[in-house]
Amino acid sequence: MNELRKDPIIDNLVIISTERGRRPLDYKRKKEKKKKNYCVFCEGNESKTPPEKYAFREEGTLENTPGWKVRVVPNKYPALEMEDGKPIIEKVGIYEKMNGLGVHEVIIETPHHFENLDKLSIDNITLILKTYQQRYLSIFEDERIKYILIFKNYGIDGGASLEHSHSQLIATPIIPKRIEEELNGSTKYFHLKKRCIFCEYINQEIQFKERIIKETEKYVAISAFAARFPFETWVLPKFHNAYYEEISDDEIFDLARMMKEILFRINNKLNNPPYNFIIHTAPSKKFSTDEWTDLDKKYHWHIEIIPRLTKIAGFEWGTGFYINPTSPEEAAKVLR
Amino acid sequence: MNELRKDPIIDNLVIISTERGRRPLDYKRKKEKKKKNYCVFCEGNESKTPPEKYAFREEGTLENTPGWKVRVVPNKYPALEMEDGKPIIEKVGIYEKMNGLGVHEVIIETPHHFENLDKLSIDNITLILKTYQQRYLSIFEDERIKYILIFKNYGIDGGASLEHSHSQLIATPIIPKRIEEELNGSTKYFHLKKRCIFCEYINQEIQFKERIIKETEKYVAISAFAARFPFETWVLPKFHNAYYEEISDDEIFDLARMMKEILFRINNKLNNPPYNFIIHTAPSKKFSTDEWTDLDKKYHWHIEIIPRLTKIAGFEWGTGFYINPTSPEEAAKVLR
Repeated sequence: MNELRKDPIIDNLVIISTERGRRPLDYKRKKEKKKKNYCVFCEGNESKTPPEKYAFREEGTLENTPGWKVRVVPNKYPALEMEDGKPIIEKVGIYEKMNGLGVHEVIIETPHHFENLDKLSIDNITLILKTYQQRYLSIFEDERIKYILIFKNYGIDGGASLEHSHSQLIATPIIPKRIEEELNGSTKYFHLKKRCIFCEYINQEIQFKERIIKETEKYVAISAFAARFPFETWVLPKFHNAYYEEISDDEIFDLARMMKEILFRINNKLNNPPYNFIIHTAPSKKFSTDEWTDLDKKYHWHIEIIPRLTKIAGFEWGTGFYINPTSPEEAAKVLR
Repeated sequence: MNELRKDPIIDNLVIISTERGRRPLDYKRKKEKKKKNYCVFCEGNESKTPPEKYAFREEGTLENTPGWKVRVVPNKYPALEMEDGKPIIEKVGIYEKMNGLGVHEVIIETPHHFENLDKLSIDNITLILKTYQQRYLSIFEDERIKYILIFKNYGIDGGASLEHSHSQLIATPIIPKRIEEELNGSTKYFHLKKRCIFCEYINQEIQFKERIIKETEKYVAISAFAARFPFETWVLPKFHNAYYEEISDDEIFDLARMMKEILFRINNKLNNPPYNFIIHTAPSKKFSTDEWTDLDKKYHWHIEIIPRLTKIAGFEWGTGFYINPTSPEEAAKVLR
């Protein structure tokens, strides 16, 4: 019989439905081959993007010219844009609108068109992770920004509209719903037990072993207990910290190794599937409410990696629940 | 500048992002052509499905033989299954599991392989909608069932694994998260204003006109104010009722005409896109909690239709918010 599992943090349900007898390798799919046309993210085409906001560059090279290793530019078609002024809420009857204040940037992960993230050098991945940190620090200086989401869409079915390896950043003047759910869950647990729920989660998983994919000195990669998607993998720091932007150089280096290895295994075992990854981190330190205080003790940053192997359809839209045809224990076995 | 809109019922945010200048017809896509192979849902193959639970049949025809017009069978690979016994919650440390109790059925909408829902006769669609009603009434007799979700996945990217026209029913021993959000939103509004928020919503839309797609005697089809997806369309009864299963024959007939017309327009204007539709209705009448009482006054059944034209990716998984590149006002203009 199938099993319903509740996510311990956000209190959501997943149906682990293995009865179709779908085996992990049944998800294998045709590889998307990169076919280079003209690409605005490639080295040499710097003038075709909006002017860069940040870059790791070889010494002596100029902004918006070749010589960079990682480069951050505003999204040409931003979902949100920063302007002078404040978030303005407009009410019309029962409706509420707000102006689209925020930041939307693209992190170009390599100057080279054909290199995917899991094939980049550890040094290159380290620079990408360091770039993320720098953007958090810099954008959080704006007091209007409450949250920054950094994520990667890979592959056409993963939502990537350009194939050159990149990730994205969207900063918002409000706390996103999903983060609100995490903050509520971890706050509730903290009031009950005076401990971080993520720390408990990690301890329990290390003890159970069956969902562990890989452990390094500082991180653990786990098949999430209530994984919404087949092979959904969480990378969690074993040290407690709510804020990604406080990551040290050592911690970045170890994370680069972990991310390369996990993405390589997903690519390798599941035949280069589309995927998304998302950094879950606490809101701006300048932000707190009566409900949400001392988030440094309660929240715990981590990265969620979602291979996109199943379709989201009527059941998921109608319920907010998910059906996952591969058990997390089996997924961990395959990726281990 | 882009606009953030809040859904008045479930308090979720959508970014209406029209800056990419994507025009409605840019979503046009290659038609999926039906190519018939052997199909277990076709007339004559009744023995290849699990035995039927319900059917509209020509007089004198036997169960599980030809002669039916609409036929309901258990899903061969059910996400949930009813057995004797109760929902059992098992706790392991911070984790909770439940046995997968529930019902998962398929409503085969026509005996003919090549007929899509919007091409069926009004009489046939009336029988489908009546079948839904009968399944609500029958399955809600089981006191363990708290919620029944009826939905349709159409097209491969809409999540349909078989191309023969069908919808699905999943009944659960718990209230789904998304329904919980709707019940919370409508309860909060009722306490404040002593009125049904959906009735207010409909009145406001009829007054504003700009998002109305079509009005019939008993229903209105609207581009949702905070549509998560381009061309997301809600069909709402203008009469107040929380329970789809209380629908009268007249109301079913008018709904059949409305659904046929709206699905035909979506097919026609957007080149036969994949879509999902979901009936949103109140939980079992036998169910109430201290928080959720008198749901008959507060909730209002309706149908949400979601053409699947955009990809859900990192931003949506990370925030729970949506980016919609077509404004609801423009979508209504196209479908009107």
